[in-house]
Amino acid sequence: MTQTVQPRETAIATVHATLAEAFGDRIQTGAAIRAQHANTATGRGTQAPDMVVWPESTEEVSLILRTCWAQGVPVIPFGAGSSLEGQLNAPQGGVSLDMSRMAAVLETHPEDLLAVVQPGITRKRLNEELRATGLTFPIDPGADASVGGMCATRASGTNAVRYGTMADNVLALEVVLADGTVIRTGSRAAKSSAGYDLTRLMIGSEGTLGVITEATLRLRGIPETVLGGIAAFPDLDSAVSAVILLVQMGLDIGRVELLDAMQIRACNAYSKLDLEETVTLFFECTGTEVVAQDTAETFAEIARDAGATHIDWSTDPDTRNKLWAARHDSYWAALALRPGCKGLVSDACVPISALAENISAAQADLEAKGLIGTILGHVGDGNFHVVLMTDPEDAEEAARVEDFLHAITLRAQAAGGTCTGEHGIGQGKMGALAEEVGPALVAMRAVKAALDPKGILNPGKIFAMTDGAA
Amino acid sequence: MTQTVQPRETAIATVHATLAEAFGDRIQTGAAIRAQHANTATGRGTQAPDMVVWPESTEEVSLILRTCWAQGVPVIPFGAGSSLEGQLNAPQGGVSLDMSRMAAVLETHPEDLLAVVQPGITRKRLNEELRATGLTFPIDPGADASVGGMCATRASGTNAVRYGTMADNVLALEVVLADGTVIRTGSRAAKSSAGYDLTRLMIGSEGTLGVITEATLRLRGIPETVLGGIAAFPDLDSAVSAVILLVQMGLDIGRVELLDAMQIRACNAYSKLDLEETVTLFFECTGTEVVAQDTAETFAEIARDAGATHIDWSTDPDTRNKLWAARHDSYWAALALRPGCKGLVSDACVPISALAENISAAQADLEAKGLIGTILGHVGDGNFHVVLMTDPEDAEEAARVEDFLHAITLRAQAAGGTCTGEHGIGQGKMGALAEEVGPALVAMRAVKAALDPKGILNPGKIFAMTDGAA
Repeated sequence: MTQTVQPRETAIATVHATLAEAFGDRIQTGAAIRAQHANTATGRGTQAPDMVVWPESTEEVSLILRTCWAQGVPVIPFGAGSSLEGQLNAPQGGVSLDMSRMAAVLETHPEDLLAVVQPGITRKRLNEELRATGLTFPIDPGADASVGGMCATRASGTNAVRYGTMADNVLALEVVLADGTVIRTGSRAAKSSAGYDLTRLMIGSEGTLGVITEATLRLRGIPETVLGGIAAFPDLDSAVSAVILLVQMGLDIGRVELLDAMQIRACNAYSKLDLEETVTLFFECTGTEVVAQDTAETFAEIARDAGATHIDWSTDPDTRNKLWAARHDSYWAALALRPGCKGLVSDACVPISALAENISAAQADLEAKGLIGTILGHVGDGNFHVVLMTDPEDAEEAARVEDFLHAITLRAQAAGGTCTGEHGIGQGKMGALAEEVGPALVAMRAVKAALDPKGILNPGKIFAMTDGAA
Repeated sequence: MTQTVQPRETAIATVHATLAEAFGDRIQTGAAIRAQHANTATGRGTQAPDMVVWPESTEEVSLILRTCWAQGVPVIPFGAGSSLEGQLNAPQGGVSLDMSRMAAVLETHPEDLLAVVQPGITRKRLNEELRATGLTFPIDPGADASVGGMCATRASGTNAVRYGTMADNVLALEVVLADGTVIRTGSRAAKSSAGYDLTRLMIGSEGTLGVITEATLRLRGIPETVLGGIAAFPDLDSAVSAVILLVQMGLDIGRVELLDAMQIRACNAYSKLDLEETVTLFFECTGTEVVAQDTAETFAEIARDAGATHIDWSTDPDTRNKLWAARHDSYWAALALRPGCKGLVSDACVPISALAENISAAQADLEAKGLIGTILGHVGDGNFHVVLMTDPEDAEEAARVEDFLHAITLRAQAAGGTCTGEHGIGQGKMGALAEEVGPALVAMRAVKAALDPKGILNPGKIFAMTDGAA
C-alpha cells in the first residue's frame, strides 16, 4: 500500500483514467460542471474540483475512495450545493463526489418511526416520499438541502427548537472511510451505549472523516393539530424578550422564528405576502387540538406581555404553508432586495440570556458599518443570522463585511456561545473555530489524522492540520 | 518524552512515590479501599487497582495523568461505583481516580437552563442543589450515579423517553486527555456546528478517551403539573402493546416504565407498596394542567384499548414519589428476593416494533433455563432489563446465565437493535460489541490510538486494541 509521491497532475490523471473506465459518462471534467460543483450559494469565491463523478452505489463510492487514496487525490462529497461556508470548494483540486444519483428511500419502518435513505435525497423529496406513511422528517434548513449534506454540516433549522438538530435525529450511518473501508455506525434502536458514538462524530464533520452513503433517520408523526401564526412587535427587544420567556418557561412550542422589519419587507415582495413591516415572530404550536390550542394561548399571553401589537394564528394549511414557504425563501428574498448582490450569512448561536444583546449589537453594527442586511433566526435556540447583501466587486465593502462578521463571532464567543449554530466551519470560519476551541483543536486533528492519515477527505476545511497553514 | 519500558512494579512504585508527595493521605493503597474501587455492584468479578487517588482540581487530575502517562500506568476514573458492566475494574492494575471530592456545582445559569458541575456530584445531590432555581436535571438512571459516570456510560433512565439521554443533555465538557492536556469541548449555546463533536465522542467512551473534570448540563423547568400513575395489565403482551401504540402516536409522555409481576412483588416487599402483582406500567404526564390531563387521558384510552384492567393516577407528590422511589430501588428490590444472590442485568434496546417479541422471548427463555429474574424497562425507548438473581458460587448456573444474556443480545441485534441501551460495554459486552459493529471497530480503535496512544486510560474496556486479545 506504500505509494511514491507523485506530481499532482500525474496523480489526477491516473485517478481520471482509472475512474473513466468504470464510470463512463458519469465522470465529467467540463469547466461549467466543475464550477457548479464548487461553492456557488454565497459571495465567497469558487474553487472548482478537477472532475466530478456520479456514483450510484456504496461499492462505487468505495472504489472511488480506494482509487483516490492510492494516489493521494482529494475527494469532496457534494449533496445539493446549498452549503454556506465554502464546504464544497476544492482548494487542492480533486474529485467532487456528486451524490445526486444515490437519492433513494431504501427502507421505511413506520412502526418504528424510521427511514433508511441514501444521502443524495433532498429534504423536500424525502418528505414527499414519506407522505403515505403519515410521518415526516422534521429537520428543515431553509434550503432544500440533501440529507447527506445536512448530516455533514450538523444542520438544523426552524424545527430544532422542538426536535433538535441532525445530531439528534440520525440514528445510524453507513460511511465509507478514506481508504474505501465501509463501516456502519449506530443501530435502529432509539438509544445505545455501544462504544464510541461514531454516528455523532461523523455528523458535523463536513466530509473530512468519511463519505456518508446511508442514513437511518428518526421520523415524527404529523401532529393531529398544527396552529401557525404570527406575532408582530414594535422592536427587536420586545420580540426577543417574548422568545426568552417562552424558552425559560419550557413551553413546548413547535417553531418560533424571528424576522426583522427589512426581512418582512423582503418576504412581502418575494413571496407576495402583505405582512406589516415590523419585527415579527412566526410561530407554530402542535399536538392534539387541546394541547396545540393551550400552547398557542400561553404563547400569546407571553407575547402580549412582551409588547406584541398583533397576534394571529390559524389552522388553515394554506395560510400556514404560505408563511413557512416565505420563511424558507427568506435568504433569496433578502438577496432580491439588492439586485446583483451576493449573500454572506452570519450564524452565531448564544445562550438565550445573551440573545437580545447580541442581536441588538449586530443591528447597531450594521448601521455603524453602513451595510445592508436583514436579521432573522431560529431564536428559540439562541441562533440568529444576519443576511448581508454584498457587492462582490467592492473590495472596500468586503472588508467592512468581514469586520462585521468577525465582530458577531467575537461577541457570541464572549457570551459563551459559538460562531456557528448550524452552517458549519467550511473555509469561512476556520480562524473562528481555532479561537473558539483552543487546545481541543489538537484532539480534532488527532481524530482526523487517525481516520484520514493522507488527508484526502475534503482538505482545507474546518481546520488546518498544522498551525499557520491555510 | 520517550520512556524506556519498565517492569510494571517499578512503574507503579514510581507513580506512587510521585503522587504520594503531592497527595499525602489522599492516596491510599489499603486492600479494602482498593477493592471498593473495583466493580462491586454486580455478580461480575472484582479486579482492584493498585492505588486510589482523590484529586480536588482539574490541575491535580492533569498532574496524575502526566505522571501515569510518563510511566505507562493505567488510570481508571471512578464516580459513584454504580456501573454494571465492570467499567471500574483494573485488569492491568493502575490508579483509580476517585472523583468524589470534585463534586461541586460550579455555576448555575437558570436564565439559560444550564449548570456547570464537577463530575463527582451525584444526580440526587445535584437536584437538591438546584431546588432553589426551580430547575432540574432530568436524566435518572436507577442508581444515584455520579454525573461523570453518567457521561462516561451515556446513561439514560426513566426520563429518556421525553428528554433523551446524556448525549442529548450535556452541552460541553472539560476533559483531561491521556497526556494531561486539558481541553474544553462544546459551548453554552443550545446547538453548534463548530467542528467535530468531541462532547459526544467523550460521552459514552467509558473513561477510555479522557477524564471528564467538568460538565455543562441542560436543565429543565419543573413542570407546572405532574400526573403520576399506574396501569395494570393481565400480561406482558398487552402492556407492551400499549407502549408501542403511544410511541407510534408520538404522545409526549413524561415517563413510561414496565415492571413484570415478579418485579412488582419485589417492589411491594422492598418499598412497602401494595400494588396488584401483575404486569404494570408506571407512567407520568407533565405540562400545564390542561396538557398533563389531556396526555393522561389519551394514554388511559390507549392502555384500556390494549387491555389494561386498572388505571389510576394522582397529582399528589407523596404518592408519586413513593412509586418512583420504588422504581429506582427495583434493582435492589429484585436482589432482595433471593438473599445472598448477586445481580446481573441485561440491557438490550430494540426498535419499538420488536419490543414485544424480544421481551416475550426473554421471559420464555428465563423459564426454559430455570433462572430467576425480573423484567423491567424503559419501554418507551425499546430498552428493557432482565435482572437475574444469581448464586455466585454456582458455576453451572453461571453458565446458564451467560447463555441467557448472550441470547438476549443476539435477538436484539438480529432485530436491528443493540446489546446495550444505557449500561455501556465495560468488560461484560466486549464480544457483543465486536459482533454488533463489525468493521466500525477499526474506526473506534483508530480514535482510541489517536487520543491515547499508550493505552493508559481504562484499558481492557469496550474493545481490545487487537483481535483475539482480551
